[in-house]
Amino acid sequence: MSKPTDLVEQAKQAAAYKAVDLHFPESPKVIGIGSGSTVVYVVERIAQLAQAKPEIAKNVIFVPTGFQSKQLLQDAGLIVGSIDSYAVGDLDVAFDGADEVDPQLNCIKGGGACQFQEKLVSLCARKFVLVADYRKKSDALGVSWTQGVPIEVVGMAYRKVTADLLSPEFGAKKVTLRMGGKAKAGPIVTDNGNFVLDADFGAIDAARVPILDKAIKTLVGVVETGLFVNADIAYFGESDGSFSTREKSA
Amino acid sequence: MSKPTDLVEQAKQAAAYKAVDLHFPESPKVIGIGSGSTVVYVVERIAQLAQAKPEIAKNVIFVPTGFQSKQLLQDAGLIVGSIDSYAVGDLDVAFDGADEVDPQLNCIKGGGACQFQEKLVSLCARKFVLVADYRKKSDALGVSWTQGVPIEVVGMAYRKVTADLLSPEFGAKKVTLRMGGKAKAGPIVTDNGNFVLDADFGAIDAARVPILDKAIKTLVGVVETGLFVNADIAYFGESDGSFSTREKSA
Repeated sequence: MSKPTDLVEQAKQAAAYKAVDLHFPESPKVIGIGSGSTVVYVVERIAQLAQAKPEIAKNVIFVPTGFQSKQLLQDAGLIVGSIDSYAVGDLDVAFDGADEVDPQLNCIKGGGACQFQEKLVSLCARKFVLVADYRKKSDALGVSWTQGVPIEVVGMAYRKVTADLLSPEFGAKKVTLRMGGKAKAGPIVTDNGNFVLDADFGAIDAARVPILDKAIKTLVGVVETGLFVNADIAYFGESDGSFSTREKSA
Repeated sequence: MSKPTDLVEQAKQAAAYKAVDLHFPESPKVIGIGSGSTVVYVVERIAQLAQAKPEIAKNVIFVPTGFQSKQLLQDAGLIVGSIDSYAVGDLDVAFDGADEVDPQLNCIKGGGACQFQEKLVSLCARKFVLVADYRKKSDALGVSWTQGVPIEVVGMAYRKVTADLLSPEFGAKKVTLRMGGKAKAGPIVTDNGNFVLDADFGAIDAARVPILDKAIKTLVGVVETGLFVNADIAYFGESDGSFSTREKSA
């Protein structure tokens, strides 16, 4: 709850607090909470609000996007719900981080392999608010986040989807099956029991992002892509301790 | 190997034998084998070929679409491969059944909840041959197969996808989460760890099938649909003991 000493952390905190102050609803019912180092400050701010208004901790349901955000909510004493109770439009707002954000607020998510649940939660929310630090801002997706677009695939289809993505139609330069490294022999397995391919398309023009997202999702074997096109507004902590806002341009 | 006494069974056997005799390649490498009561005769015919040409049992890899077809292949002494070794174009041919087939050879599959692997295997094959009995022939999908299009979904998204399918954009009349009945409390779980929704769209015009298939697949939460649009030819056992063929019309 105290002010961080590091400038960037101060900026992330300021950005997160502003996002909550402006977008946490007057009469909240169900709120989506993602993960990432800036989201920690989102939950911190919500916990402060709950101190002032005890009904927030008593009546509001918080829907996490994965294990990390569930723990955050549990530690803050908030009520944890499950996304399997909801459909599109049922959540008031969702707050989440991103791995890279372009000027149109398209983003890449899935560095933590949770993009399926993150996308589901964000889509079920009537408003999707990004919070992140300035390093996530980019002129085009694929420029600063160079490990590729994370794509969740059913395990038995990983070769087929890899070949599809490398074909001229999709034009990926490189597709990597994400491995567990020291933590797990063989590929990582997602919370849904699937694999993740990281597909490097180079810089992706903003106009192409929604088209590429749909085309990849249509491939047999793909469960979900890490391309997000549904953010409404973003708050970034800057390197000088301030924060900036980015809205979808017309 | 003997001739069945029942007329319909005789017809299914004749249809399956014809399909194998015409489409089993001269120099086979990898063959996809699906499931269904007519596919049993496909494997029977391939086993006969293997008696005459021992290299079929020695060198050809047979890729099943699920547990049932794997057992069929094992019982026939054929080499069982795994689809996770292959990509589009790698299989010579795939033989499989269907729950309903329209005049354009679009079909509904997934009554057994294996549509994901069935679609993956059929797509990896350079030719996809359907074998079934006459009861599977239909003027339009959804007419004779009335339980709905089987749609595999990630469990936590079943409410969201159900609502999506019932929306005016998709227009499903009814969407049912497939339950385990006496065999399993709660919903069935697919071989990939997911749920199945059966979505009743009424009769589906042949021209709409590929569009509906893509639109459903694009929904966040959907792993695969039971609409197939990639069959090349179909062989049907008729009620009088004969068989008929249906090719994609122009």
